[in-house]
Amino acid sequence: MQLKNDLLIRAAKGQAVERTPVWLMRQAGRILPEYRAVRESVSGFIELAQTPELAAEVTIQPVDILGVDAAIIFSDILVIPEAMGLPYEMVEKRGPWFPNTVKKEADLKKLRIADGIDDLSYVIEAIKITKKALNGRVPLIGFAGAPWTIFAYMIEGSGSKTFSKARAMLYTQPDFSHKLMQMITDSTINYLKAQIAAGVDLVQVFDSWAGILPPDQYQEFSLQYISKICDAIHEVPKTIFAKGAFFARKEMADLNCETIGLDWNMGIKESRQLIGPNKTLQGNLDPAALYGNAKQVENATKIMMGQFKGSRHIANLGHGVYPDIDPEMVKIFIETVKAY
Amino acid sequence: MQLKNDLLIRAAKGQAVERTPVWLMRQAGRILPEYRAVRESVSGFIELAQTPELAAEVTIQPVDILGVDAAIIFSDILVIPEAMGLPYEMVEKRGPWFPNTVKKEADLKKLRIADGIDDLSYVIEAIKITKKALNGRVPLIGFAGAPWTIFAYMIEGSGSKTFSKARAMLYTQPDFSHKLMQMITDSTINYLKAQIAAGVDLVQVFDSWAGILPPDQYQEFSLQYISKICDAIHEVPKTIFAKGAFFARKEMADLNCETIGLDWNMGIKESRQLIGPNKTLQGNLDPAALYGNAKQVENATKIMMGQFKGSRHIANLGHGVYPDIDPEMVKIFIETVKAY
Repeated sequence: MQLKNDLLIRAAKGQAVERTPVWLMRQAGRILPEYRAVRESVSGFIELAQTPELAAEVTIQPVDILGVDAAIIFSDILVIPEAMGLPYEMVEKRGPWFPNTVKKEADLKKLRIADGIDDLSYVIEAIKITKKALNGRVPLIGFAGAPWTIFAYMIEGSGSKTFSKARAMLYTQPDFSHKLMQMITDSTINYLKAQIAAGVDLVQVFDSWAGILPPDQYQEFSLQYISKICDAIHEVPKTIFAKGAFFARKEMADLNCETIGLDWNMGIKESRQLIGPNKTLQGNLDPAALYGNAKQVENATKIMMGQFKGSRHIANLGHGVYPDIDPEMVKIFIETVKAY
Repeated sequence: MQLKNDLLIRAAKGQAVERTPVWLMRQAGRILPEYRAVRESVSGFIELAQTPELAAEVTIQPVDILGVDAAIIFSDILVIPEAMGLPYEMVEKRGPWFPNTVKKEADLKKLRIADGIDDLSYVIEAIKITKKALNGRVPLIGFAGAPWTIFAYMIEGSGSKTFSKARAMLYTQPDFSHKLMQMITDSTINYLKAQIAAGVDLVQVFDSWAGILPPDQYQEFSLQYISKICDAIHEVPKTIFAKGAFFARKEMADLNCETIGLDWNMGIKESRQLIGPNKTLQGNLDPAALYGNAKQVENATKIMMGQFKGSRHIANLGHGVYPDIDPEMVKIFIETVKAY
């Protein structure tokens, strides 16, 4: 189906756009009262993500209510370990928790390469329902976690300030680590291809814990596998968002992808110099800037837009929108971008 | 008293050294069984920090047991809010917690500028006891938190993944934020001067949450106040360690200090280029590298030393040593630096 608003896709490809497209990471599933109403009708986050009709509903809410230029499927990066045979629970106010973790080579035998279709049919079904309901209004973004970030959770078993178990593994068992990374990479490629077959118009890979590795280790254990994913996906534009990987920006210019996401620590001018002119940059307003009043949000957004001016850009925050942000301020951010 | 081992001081000042000095952030108070024995004899972390004889004892342990080239006084950056009138508790496994936080301009009236001597007499006393017991064997490092990091805790009331309350304040109440920053800065200068009067040979300022601010905001709300501290202290060399402030390295070259600490994300060659030749760099082995075996720790340390070679350097980790690191691996790190 032809997209009525294809600004995101054209901006990603570096084609001419009438104005800069805008969406927000975590736009579905955090800030809207309409989301919370749906969320309270089920037992928890995972049930919501696994109920395709409801996942589709909350995916579309920000398009209707906020006026963003893209929808992103409501799901979670940790569906991949689950599909590989390592289930998780979402503990209220604490985050994800894995009853079992991967500790040694023998544990790899208990894992499988996810096929992306049967293993993750609930996501695929949610994508199909969303595409139908969106009816071409805006593009739908699919996503997955980067292999290092998924690895970090599979070893650590939960969120962590230091992810020291996962990082220890890279030092003590590099061969094992590479094997697991490759299994995650293969699963992720299958999963993204299944999302694309189901209709997503662009895919984004989130390396949420990129910023915790030293530069050399990041090349070896993360960027190498992100590169494999980029090389395997040809059907739609790809965005790589590696939070905190300021030290890898130059190397990211060589990835076979269209767009690089910037977090709010990364200077825009410096990032453009390091990444060069041949990628679209996505981001990067400080999520905390939306705590300001209307005038402050408008000013901060205009300053950000001015710094990106004249080069390929998709407007977004520098990380996911914070849960306690007033949706009215999100609207002002969006409207300021649209009017710029 | 003349120092018998003054490698740290000479390296900080850029003077000739026979070999690179080495110490570890958090060397006291985390990894040693001898520390845990002392820790278990009191009710908690804060009692230990406030008992000068015991604080001195655990300060000296790593000099005796690990062979580091410096001692750092066992204390906590949050003694400053406490001395300003905002007490905190240390909750086991959760970290610091403030029963009251600073929320608005009127709350500033309840705070005072800490004088550093009467308000923090237990630290000053611990420094005097430590200096006497060290008897000039190695230099003693004093320290304080940077104003932004202290501000973040005073507003947020605890550790946080996002410090979104503190960051919101910078956007919504910049004037109030500057007033509180200045109060913290004045308190910190008093405190560091009192530490120096009591005998510390070098001071380090820790900006633990530097990496959470966008570059412009970091200049305005953090680096500006660090600079005031640097300008106020003349008596001993100063080290600034701003974790995650990769984006401010160039500006840090202009600080009136001798040494800049690098975290393990910061490339050594790139950091030297940005900071220039006129500062000593401290760091920056990945703390997780010490999870390796003896050979791996030795190799990782040698690689790090090689990258710093030929320029002003104090060897350290890129952050505090992790609590579950084997002290034997810490010794190998130290011995590898010494033998390099």
